[in-house]
Amino acid sequence: MRPYITDPAAIYAESFATVRREARLDRFDAGMQRMAIRLIHACGMVEVADRIAYSPDAYAAGRAALEAGKPVLCDCEMAGAGIIRRYLPGDNEVIVTLNDPRVPALAQDIGNTRSAAAVELWRDHIEGAVVCIGNAPTALFHLLELIDAGFPKPAVILGFPVGFVGAAESKAELAADPRGCAFVALRGRRGGSAMASASVNALAAGLPEEAR
Amino acid sequence: MRPYITDPAAIYAESFATVRREARLDRFDAGMQRMAIRLIHACGMVEVADRIAYSPDAYAAGRAALEAGKPVLCDCEMAGAGIIRRYLPGDNEVIVTLNDPRVPALAQDIGNTRSAAAVELWRDHIEGAVVCIGNAPTALFHLLELIDAGFPKPAVILGFPVGFVGAAESKAELAADPRGCAFVALRGRRGGSAMASASVNALAAGLPEEAR
Repeated sequence: MRPYITDPAAIYAESFATVRREARLDRFDAGMQRMAIRLIHACGMVEVADRIAYSPDAYAAGRAALEAGKPVLCDCEMAGAGIIRRYLPGDNEVIVTLNDPRVPALAQDIGNTRSAAAVELWRDHIEGAVVCIGNAPTALFHLLELIDAGFPKPAVILGFPVGFVGAAESKAELAADPRGCAFVALRGRRGGSAMASASVNALAAGLPEEAR
Repeated sequence: MRPYITDPAAIYAESFATVRREARLDRFDAGMQRMAIRLIHACGMVEVADRIAYSPDAYAAGRAALEAGKPVLCDCEMAGAGIIRRYLPGDNEVIVTLNDPRVPALAQDIGNTRSAAAVELWRDHIEGAVVCIGNAPTALFHLLELIDAGFPKPAVILGFPVGFVGAAESKAELAADPRGCAFVALRGRRGGSAMASASVNALAAGLPEEAR
């Protein structure tokens, strides 16, 4: 067997150093650089830096929401599972409504996916909150529809739906008209729950592993 | 707002049809085609088809292990969260030992990461089981070390660690010498828990969404 690095601090340091060496990060301010680095670290692809769309206030707005103790609303269990709880600055609740027993009937009622129906159950939690979408384009599309219809607005929408049907389109819609919300999104088909939770971890803590 | 597809069956059908149209799948047999399609669907990148390394018996061995009721051992909670439980044919247990309270001390003892230490706790479950690694290169490296030292062998190793330090190297080690285990791995830096759980879902059920 070849030798390999077994020290977690050394692994993080070398990982982040590799990202800083290879990725184009100069268009980002310090906060968004930390987010871009965590996003790249989550997927192993430095070139995604070039596909990150965001509003100038995204990092500050997301950070402030977490510090104020607002919840994080995720579209799927995987995105929730990747959020490092000890990094959250406001003992923030991580809410995933996808498996709520009301969702299947609600999906039928609204003629949309379970992921979209689950967003309707965010109503009492979403005002000023952090939205983290790592799977379903329909969740992002439906959130934007709901906001257009007067739904309360989150502080920031972290948009990382993935795949071949609606992912690129839903993120383009968000970037073209974020409805007055701060946002970060990865343009195109790529995305996923690892990047979605990485974006929350970046807002929560930046790169604490780098400082050790 | 632009119109978008809201019918889950239509979304799956169009997704899988897009993958079949764009990806190079001709080198795979029917079982591995289904796995490749789910892997691509999980990450939004058709070109990963070209980076899949596998042993010829991987699909059959993994499928047989699941049908025999063997557990699925995951290196992280996210990979476990992505496994669609209702698809599992043998009421299989999904085991994640990373947050076992014994892990931190064990990591200290063996001078390795918590992810590697968590693998040691698979000892009583791993014989003939399905191993699903979606995060930590050190988990895959240490599993191979343990097998070299006489640890019981899983039926199949699904190797999808991701990132810049050890991910490509650990998967290359697995592909070069799978220690008599069946395996599937994505060469290079890319990978992640979404692909890892997709590979289990492929073994468990193929593409049932396509048949609807």
